[in-house]
Amino acid sequence: MRRWPYQLSAEELRAAFTEALDPQLAQHHVVHTAGYQDAIRRIANELQCEATEAALLAYRNADDAAGYARRLLASTATGTMLVDAGFATAGTFTLVEQQQATGITQREIIRLETLAESLIQGADDPRGWFSAVRGALRAGIERGAVGVKTICAYRATLRLQPVDTDALGVAFSAIRIRAERGEHPRLSGSALCHALLFEAAQECRELDVPLQVHCGFGDPDEDLAKTSPLGLRTLFIDPAYRGLRIALLHCYPYHREAAYLCSVFPDVYMDLSLTIPFAGLEGGRAMREALGLCPTSKLLYASDASRYPEVSFVAAVAHREALAEALGELVARGILDTTAAVGAGRQVLAENAKRIYNLTD
Amino acid sequence: MRRWPYQLSAEELRAAFTEALDPQLAQHHVVHTAGYQDAIRRIANELQCEATEAALLAYRNADDAAGYARRLLASTATGTMLVDAGFATAGTFTLVEQQQATGITQREIIRLETLAESLIQGADDPRGWFSAVRGALRAGIERGAVGVKTICAYRATLRLQPVDTDALGVAFSAIRIRAERGEHPRLSGSALCHALLFEAAQECRELDVPLQVHCGFGDPDEDLAKTSPLGLRTLFIDPAYRGLRIALLHCYPYHREAAYLCSVFPDVYMDLSLTIPFAGLEGGRAMREALGLCPTSKLLYASDASRYPEVSFVAAVAHREALAEALGELVARGILDTTAAVGAGRQVLAENAKRIYNLTD
Amino acid sequence: MRRWPYQLSAEELRAAFTEALDPQLAQHHVVHTAGYQDAIRRIANELQCEATEAALLAYRNADDAAGYARRLLASTATGTMLVDAGFATAGTFTLVEQQQATGITQREIIRLETLAESLIQGADDPRGWFSAVRGALRAGIERGAVGVKTICAYRATLRLQPVDTDALGVAFSAIRIRAERGEHPRLSGSALCHALLFEAAQECRELDVPLQVHCGFGDPDEDLAKTSPLGLRTLFIDPAYRGLRIALLHCYPYHREAAYLCSVFPDVYMDLSLTIPFAGLEGGRAMREALGLCPTSKLLYASDASRYPEVSFVAAVAHREALAEALGELVARGILDTTAAVGAGRQVLAENAKRIYNLTD
Repeated sequence: MRRWPYQLSAEELRAAFTEALDPQLAQHHVVHTAGYQDAIRRIANELQCEATEAALLAYRNADDAAGYARRLLASTATGTMLVDAGFATAGTFTLVEQQQATGITQREIIRLETLAESLIQGADDPRGWFSAVRGALRAGIERGAVGVKTICAYRATLRLQPVDTDALGVAFSAIRIRAERGEHPRLSGSALCHALLFEAAQECRELDVPLQVHCGFGDPDEDLAKTSPLGLRTLFIDPAYRGLRIALLHCYPYHREAAYLCSVFPDVYMDLSLTIPFAGLEGGRAMREALGLCPTSKLLYASDASRYPEVSFVAAVAHREALAEALGELVARGILDTTAAVGAGRQVLAENAKRIYNLTD
Repeated sequence: MRRWPYQLSAEELRAAFTEALDPQLAQHHVVHTAGYQDAIRRIANELQCEATEAALLAYRNADDAAGYARRLLASTATGTMLVDAGFATAGTFTLVEQQQATGITQREIIRLETLAESLIQGADDPRGWFSAVRGALRAGIERGAVGVKTICAYRATLRLQPVDTDALGVAFSAIRIRAERGEHPRLSGSALCHALLFEAAQECRELDVPLQVHCGFGDPDEDLAKTSPLGLRTLFIDPAYRGLRIALLHCYPYHREAAYLCSVFPDVYMDLSLTIPFAGLEGGRAMREALGLCPTSKLLYASDASRYPEVSFVAAVAHREALAEALGELVARGILDTTAAVGAGRQVLAENAKRIYNLTD
Repeated sequence: MRRWPYQLSAEELRAAFTEALDPQLAQHHVVHTAGYQDAIRRIANELQCEATEAALLAYRNADDAAGYARRLLASTATGTMLVDAGFATAGTFTLVEQQQATGITQREIIRLETLAESLIQGADDPRGWFSAVRGALRAGIERGAVGVKTICAYRATLRLQPVDTDALGVAFSAIRIRAERGEHPRLSGSALCHALLFEAAQECRELDVPLQVHCGFGDPDEDLAKTSPLGLRTLFIDPAYRGLRIALLHCYPYHREAAYLCSVFPDVYMDLSLTIPFAGLEGGRAMREALGLCPTSKLLYASDASRYPEVSFVAAVAHREALAEALGELVARGILDTTAAVGAGRQVLAENAKRIYNLTD
């Protein structure tokens, strides 16, 4: 999260509720989305201020920054935050600082591609690179990280292809030259990214930690057409990965496909994350659609909030509401009784994550 | 159907309500799906027993097996069962036995790939093989079968490619060698499966019987990404298949695409089958979505039940309910009057199938 | 629009509410769609006649054709019609005639492929052809046209590929030979269509007019599998097209994908057009789904009516209703207040189009 205290402008707040990278969206269009209007209303309701962007910003910018943030975060009732450390910048808390600042236990998720980029220069060939990456993953997990996340969807297609050793060698040489020149060796292309993903998947299986895979909805650096979780089929059916727990993140608009995968493969899980706070009533619709095939033992809560307590807050509140409505519909139809619905809610909001990530209270 | 009497374990019952092949799903997750909870509730309601898995199993395992099965099947109000004989095993009824055991008229649907596999060893080349397959299809239809089903989706992509004669020859030689060695010649790959599908499509057209095509939702032997009915375009637009009736089976999550195809091509039909009993309220949603573009003269009822009367029962009851709700919504909005809605229900539940499969009462 | 007066048969009316080209659909199936039944009901309600196809046709065929058409069109409350002139035939009004006949301002949208086909014979090579096309687009816009529309989806895949100069040269030579022989030079294939689309996109950017792109739902001349707007990614991210306004037309069943594109790219817009009058309650569902991610400042109204005032009327009425319900749901949930919802409705029904097409009142 961004290190508080800080003042927040209207455009910064809007930018927190969109995946757009172009500032024109925050300038002209985000205010015309149901998701943002809903966010304003929910936050204002919590703060007991007028439900306008201006009133909300005036309130939060005048308030004690730490108290304000803690108040919103307390409303999320988050027991443990699993944090993709790949978002870290000079202006964000370290995990240790964040735990102290928020009062919430923080556990790291290792971002695969960021880690792997840092190890290119020291490696002579792909084999050495993979060995270094796997060693670093082991070290990270030993140090307390609880899972690994791949953003392959931003760097290559998610339609996984078998490793092409020749192409891998060529691509590795090219990126290593960039690294030696002092340029940032940005991983991209299927030759590198898929091979890396397969290595990480095997390592996660051996380490008994989940592999998170960004699928679907994200910023426009990705080509959404190539981010369906169905493309990960090799990870689900190849015996080399048997037992690997895979968490499909985001998923929209491929959430029906993700729910199908959860329904037929034993170790596949999914979340809807940012679709819930960003997409207005469509978030609740995605939740109901996902709960068609996806067992409640397979759906995970996630906020996808990376910088602002406002997003954490809206994600948590809207998520609980969407889940309550989806389960409530099943109760109203006589499919679940109240006890079963409450149990299902607990699974999604806490128990599944505790089990899958081996979190101890 | 599985030859009764038999006792049913909890895991067997759960396994009947999932497309998963891995037993972990039945062990740990199926009970956490809306579909299974709904199934338990519906069956218990019919049996007038407590709505728990244990109570239901105790009831059915203590009951007279034949009477129990007939009772559930009677509630489905099934006039004729169209049965894919490709599911037959030593433990299942023959069609003649099944008709006697259930009291319901049984008509065979020929499973193309199973038939074709049995004719590989006797053929010298693809031409001879196709000729044998077409002859066997003709014989099967003359013997009383009413249609042909392809499970190409399990063996190859459904994105149909033009026949590549060279690749076909090579693939046929390879599979024929396996057959001669006494191995089961399992058909797979587009070279064989697409060419076979085109031959079968022509034969069905000549025989004036429908070709059923498994699309979408199925067990994880298929790659869901490659099972959209849109891939069958050649069958819809090539004059060689003009007049061929095609029934798209299952379809989810490509049911909107299937409905589109039904709306623009004269001889394309669709069903939702297992999505209705397996996917909780999502089944009804798929029904409403399908009835956006799909005329009610094109939607077919199907249970997809292969072994257990419980699935037949739940599919029928849930299907009628989903259909009643979808049509009821149109009545509530003034789009259909009650008479038209009842007529539409009759089309979906009986008349369309009778017309398309030339069933006589 | 078809030049009135004319009598309308039942099959002609039905054919106006389907994308099917095969007359069997109008003969046997269109009456069994929710969309058509809804259309009958809405028109009959306007005419105050019995809500049957026969009564409606009797009424309209007996009525004064011009008065009847003007009455339906007046109910649409259309300020300006943007007309794709590529539908023009001997039996349709010219734009000048149509403006006089309807009393509604008409502005032309230039159909790219039709224009480009007319310029093949006069060009020596692709470069000359593109130069002629761009000149003709400039002339058309100077003459008063307000945008350009591409039907690339009907002629090639929408998964845009980089221009292959060699393939382009070969394809151009082949089509030019056909043109010289006096055959109609029908553009098709990605080599020609994508290169043409990129040229037109640059020209539209320079002329500051929107480029409309047919996506998704259309007649079966297109392969729906290849018409997702996600395939247009190059137009969204290549700096060569920066500032180009792109209107994604139709979109269904890719409307969630289109809404995503609208949410992350500043100059992307979308409409649902014919899905609303053709797809029954599914039209309203698509509207609600689109308004998940799509800002109300990005959604456009469109009727897609090309020949009949009946379609214009039903599209307008059903669209307003669907929009009112989608926005009303946001009001009911407290996400928008009434003022904001009314403002959003104005955006979709008029303001967005005025701004994007630079329409002056």
